[in-house]
Amino acid sequence: MTKTALVVSAHSADFVWRAGGAIALHAAKGFRVTVICLSFGERGESAKLWRLPGMTLDRVKSERQAEAAAAAKHLNVHDIQFWDLGDYPMELTREHLFRMVDVYRTIRPSFVMTHSRQDPYNFDHPMTNEFAQHARVIAQAHGHNPEQKVIGAPQVYLYEPHQTERSSWNPNVLMSIDSVWPQKRAAIECMAGQEHLWDYYTRVAMNRGNQTARNSEQTCTYGEAYEAVFPHVVESLA
Amino acid sequence: MTKTALVVSAHSADFVWRAGGAIALHAAKGFRVTVICLSFGERGESAKLWRLPGMTLDRVKSERQAEAAAAAKHLNVHDIQFWDLGDYPMELTREHLFRMVDVYRTIRPSFVMTHSRQDPYNFDHPMTNEFAQHARVIAQAHGHNPEQKVIGAPQVYLYEPHQTERSSWNPNVLMSIDSVWPQKRAAIECMAGQEHLWDYYTRVAMNRGNQTARNSEQTCTYGEAYEAVFPHVVESLA
Amino acid sequence: MTKTALVVSAHSADFVWRAGGAIALHAAKGFRVTVICLSFGERGESAKLWRLPGMTLDRVKSERQAEAAAAAKHLNVHDIQFWDLGDYPMELTREHLFRMVDVYRTIRPSFVMTHSRQDPYNFDHPMTNEFAQHARVIAQAHGHNPEQKVIGAPQVYLYEPHQTERSSWNPNVLMSIDSVWPQKRAAIECMAGQEHLWDYYTRVAMNRGNQTARNSEQTCTYGEAYEAVFPHVVESLA
Amino acid sequence: MTKTALVVSAHSADFVWRAGGAIALHAAKGFRVTVICLSFGERGESAKLWRLPGMTLDRVKSERQAEAAAAAKHLNVHDIQFWDLGDYPMELTREHLFRMVDVYRTIRPSFVMTHSRQDPYNFDHPMTNEFAQHARVIAQAHGHNPEQKVIGAPQVYLYEPHQTERSSWNPNVLMSIDSVWPQKRAAIECMAGQEHLWDYYTRVAMNRGNQTARNSEQTCTYGEAYEAVFPHVVESLA
Amino acid sequence: MTKTALVVSAHSADFVWRAGGAIALHAAKGFRVTVICLSFGERGESAKLWRLPGMTLDRVKSERQAEAAAAAKHLNVHDIQFWDLGDYPMELTREHLFRMVDVYRTIRPSFVMTHSRQDPYNFDHPMTNEFAQHARVIAQAHGHNPEQKVIGAPQVYLYEPHQTERSSWNPNVLMSIDSVWPQKRAAIECMAGQEHLWDYYTRVAMNRGNQTARNSEQTCTYGEAYEAVFPHVVESLA
Amino acid sequence: MTKTALVVSAHSADFVWRAGGAIALHAAKGFRVTVICLSFGERGESAKLWRLPGMTLDRVKSERQAEAAAAAKHLNVHDIQFWDLGDYPMELTREHLFRMVDVYRTIRPSFVMTHSRQDPYNFDHPMTNEFAQHARVIAQAHGHNPEQKVIGAPQVYLYEPHQTERSSWNPNVLMSIDSVWPQKRAAIECMAGQEHLWDYYTRVAMNRGNQTARNSEQTCTYGEAYEAVFPHVVESLA
Repeated sequence: MTKTALVVSAHSADFVWRAGGAIALHAAKGFRVTVICLSFGERGESAKLWRLPGMTLDRVKSERQAEAAAAAKHLNVHDIQFWDLGDYPMELTREHLFRMVDVYRTIRPSFVMTHSRQDPYNFDHPMTNEFAQHARVIAQAHGHNPEQKVIGAPQVYLYEPHQTERSSWNPNVLMSIDSVWPQKRAAIECMAGQEHLWDYYTRVAMNRGNQTARNSEQTCTYGEAYEAVFPHVVESLA
Repeated sequence: MTKTALVVSAHSADFVWRAGGAIALHAAKGFRVTVICLSFGERGESAKLWRLPGMTLDRVKSERQAEAAAAAKHLNVHDIQFWDLGDYPMELTREHLFRMVDVYRTIRPSFVMTHSRQDPYNFDHPMTNEFAQHARVIAQAHGHNPEQKVIGAPQVYLYEPHQTERSSWNPNVLMSIDSVWPQKRAAIECMAGQEHLWDYYTRVAMNRGNQTARNSEQTCTYGEAYEAVFPHVVESLA
Repeated sequence: MTKTALVVSAHSADFVWRAGGAIALHAAKGFRVTVICLSFGERGESAKLWRLPGMTLDRVKSERQAEAAAAAKHLNVHDIQFWDLGDYPMELTREHLFRMVDVYRTIRPSFVMTHSRQDPYNFDHPMTNEFAQHARVIAQAHGHNPEQKVIGAPQVYLYEPHQTERSSWNPNVLMSIDSVWPQKRAAIECMAGQEHLWDYYTRVAMNRGNQTARNSEQTCTYGEAYEAVFPHVVESLA
Repeated sequence: MTKTALVVSAHSADFVWRAGGAIALHAAKGFRVTVICLSFGERGESAKLWRLPGMTLDRVKSERQAEAAAAAKHLNVHDIQFWDLGDYPMELTREHLFRMVDVYRTIRPSFVMTHSRQDPYNFDHPMTNEFAQHARVIAQAHGHNPEQKVIGAPQVYLYEPHQTERSSWNPNVLMSIDSVWPQKRAAIECMAGQEHLWDYYTRVAMNRGNQTARNSEQTCTYGEAYEAVFPHVVESLA
Repeated sequence: MTKTALVVSAHSADFVWRAGGAIALHAAKGFRVTVICLSFGERGESAKLWRLPGMTLDRVKSERQAEAAAAAKHLNVHDIQFWDLGDYPMELTREHLFRMVDVYRTIRPSFVMTHSRQDPYNFDHPMTNEFAQHARVIAQAHGHNPEQKVIGAPQVYLYEPHQTERSSWNPNVLMSIDSVWPQKRAAIECMAGQEHLWDYYTRVAMNRGNQTARNSEQTCTYGEAYEAVFPHVVESLA
Repeated sequence: MTKTALVVSAHSADFVWRAGGAIALHAAKGFRVTVICLSFGERGESAKLWRLPGMTLDRVKSERQAEAAAAAKHLNVHDIQFWDLGDYPMELTREHLFRMVDVYRTIRPSFVMTHSRQDPYNFDHPMTNEFAQHARVIAQAHGHNPEQKVIGAPQVYLYEPHQTERSSWNPNVLMSIDSVWPQKRAAIECMAGQEHLWDYYTRVAMNRGNQTARNSEQTCTYGEAYEAVFPHVVESLA
């Protein structure tokens, strides 16, 4: 049976910078990866577009959607959904929460990726963290739509925020993304509206790569780092 | 080539309560596990023996050594070494540090296990943590005995202290030890001098087992928990 | 005048596992203990019931209520209230908050017990913590129903969550519950729907008992642990 | 061009005890300081008024407003606004959030002052922190009222809560307020309803003054302490 | 049998500022309180004396001893010992550690008071913390001078450092010292060499008094705050 | 009078990667910067040299010294001292501590830079932190060489460790080093033995530059980040 993964992204570009390597890597391993973009980041993360004359909210959204869809293609995302819930601030209702529970129940992901618990630079990110984790726990509840099968206990990985130390984020998992780096870089380059971040996140990837090498005995040029929320259940310590 | 693991234990019983499952499990997987007991716990952890009439330090030590050796046999420890460095307090010199570096260089462990960084109930435990981790870093230094081959970057797992919350210990790895539980319990029962702890650590194992099940989708009765010091370098998040 | 205590429980079984000893012990000392169950845990904590054929939400609720009422009787709870606010997620409105304030003003508890501030396994628990603490502070406000008498500053004790270390919960109070253990165990056994937790929380009690003994000079077999939110105001340090 | 600062105060007295020195000092330097009092603290922080016979909510509010206005005059506040949003609990809606964004966009403050992130004694304080910081981030969003100019990245200073250690507040900025102490004391003495706090916050000021001296090489009698949320961007380390 | 308490003070004035109230209060309750001054603070805490012409290390020491002895008399200290181990830095050897163990074994204190675990302003303070706690644990060891009776598990209270928030010190115990305040102030005034701290610690006492009142329902003018290292073992939560 | 700064570096390259920008920048402002290299990193940080045939400890040291001296020249270091105290592990005695105190007393630095408090990858770094901070406090002691003038309270900045999140290091100061970047890069390129780190620390500089821009309203390409140990004493919050 095909394995799956779920990425819950506050804005339509977050999954690229922060989890693009993990997505492409698992797609290459045969996982079907679903990405939910709760918003387009149309208000708060589209500065460059807003500087163009005659820009409207709808045009920003459609540009951002096109960028994200193109990036998703590079990463071999199986399904990308744009929920268009607004940003700065997001408004996440009980109804959206249950919609996300349905996603969990349908996809049954092997693991989940989302934002850090804190971020003084961005209030949508911790809100998305809470939302994604809360829905996961409800999807485990036998009394929620009892005719459906509950999910198990997929690990939740928090991907890298902008300034890690100020966001109380401490990575305990590192992964080489060398084999998919060209895809991630291509996806990054789809983000025409945030060109100033292309090289920023390339450097992040290279330094995480260095740390990946240092913490193992493999060579590694590009890496990604994550904080696992739950203990790892392992069968061997080696 | 045979894989190896290294356990650095402050007193001669610590490796049993805290890492007995991991030791037996990896022995069963073919690992050669070396256990270094820095002391016998002869002064601080042998209350029952000291209540016997006519007890001497030497007799306590030999009783404790016999117990630990018997326990090690149940766990299929490959090599158990008693360094007899004293306890309450330990005295760990530069010379001992280099001796431990030699152990790292000789054994070349796939992973290391030792005590937590803090423990207000026991000052030998954090001292052992510092000692074991410091030696590991020196064993990585190319200029230390440059004719020898340096070691890589083996993960260090901190095993469970007596009262976890007061020892700033937060487990991020859980492992089922169901398959080796009879061995661990048999090893525990070798510790005649600390019979009051037999059931304590059995209950710890059962509750960690419950948590292992809850954090995964497997059944588990007996578990052990560890805090990994370094990020995990993984090839998949699933 | 009769002393009172207040326990705010997210689901109808929480007060049993986590605070059953404290409740029975204070009842035996003459305290009138009120337990508020905000929900029955009907959706999220009733897996076993939902596996029965033809189960409905109403039947789950009434089974859970019957279990909790029976447990409360064993613990000599003075008053148990079922607010039926739903679970997974709870919905706690301003109106419910003021209703809880009324409880504080009416009961005037000597101390309060509720959940931990964090719990990645359960989002109703931290919500209940916030709710119970918030209501306490409003009950202290002279301008809230100014014709009523404000309450003083009762200590708030956070009782034990499922996995303590992952819930940022650090107990600073331990109490022997030996004298009431048979009652707590009897109450636990009322929880027919969660039989898998009976022995889990028995083991928790035994290990907290061991820690209680170790941190004092008394013998103790069964204990409970709590985190006090506010500084203790004492008259002696001994 | 005139520089400005923004203070977001949960209740109408908070800005006096906690930030009065900073306000007066910057007014003296030529800053226009705007203070937003989200509520009057009419329910939760007006105990003394409520003890008067025949007191009503409206009378409490108008007394508290008069006190705060008088205090603001002593501190040379440029503009003090009373939003009257209620207290214990506050209710802060999306509409209020956008109103606060408008304040940021209009004032364009060089720095912002508000409450600590946690406070177990007071739930309005962390709510105000979240509110003030959230509005700041939205004011940075190009897509929010795109015809307006976004703000830059003003530092946010968290001023001193009642019991610092229990509020996870750790000051990393100290400032001598010697030159404006008479003004701050005069402002404090406007707070007729909370006379028990006059000397409390005077002593806080004197001990922070001592720490200011100890951490520098200047003399200082009265000080204030703040936690800066964001890294300081400096041009010199001396 | 007479109850006892032990205070381990890095320098000869620390016990006065930080624990003077607790000492006098327990003396009044009939406790015999022993104070160990590891050093006189002759190098690092005697600035005023060193400004006098012709000052020598011996004269500083004898002045400081006389001050501390006079203060101890005001507080009704039972026994004050000056170990004269040097300061800035202290040198604490294995021999001193065993001497401290002897003190524990002889006095058998009901509780212990010492410095905080961290203090960036003073390196002797954390060293004294480690020393006092380490000796306590050795005094519990049956194999240390096995002919003596081991001690139980006396609580350790960390008294207030200079700048609490920077010293990772979080008080969880507050105590009114109103009944002995005149004695504490008299003891403080014995410290001729540190007159600049008299009012500083008076203000600390008054603000801790305010917090004592706020956290209880008693009136209180002067208080002291402590961090208890170990969980409190209690018999009632009220 | 000329201002000065002091950098205490565990190994002879640390000051370059971690503080090179700050050094060059302050040299350009007219500061005389003294760098103390406690060791050459000859054993633990010279892997490349040790791979050369016939390498000896002395040759490694002289190569490392030459590299560091050349780098210091690029940064306009006023005085670089090589104390040759050994590495992996360092041995820092009381005598060395007093020698460092002399440096503080002689130089009288406006600020100090050194390593982070923790680093699981390197035990010399936290040891150097403790050493540099301890000496600073002794240099403040009036009784240490009382004929000399004590120092004031220079800020201590902890520069960036290899993996920040695992080293409990949280930067609260950012500085643009654009104006001196060519010098820092030239200094970095002197480190022939650690070429693999040239680009690593260039990327660190570029990402800290991005964060510097984001936290201010200036443009910035290259930055450095530091954690200030003590509160900043400021005269304005703007």
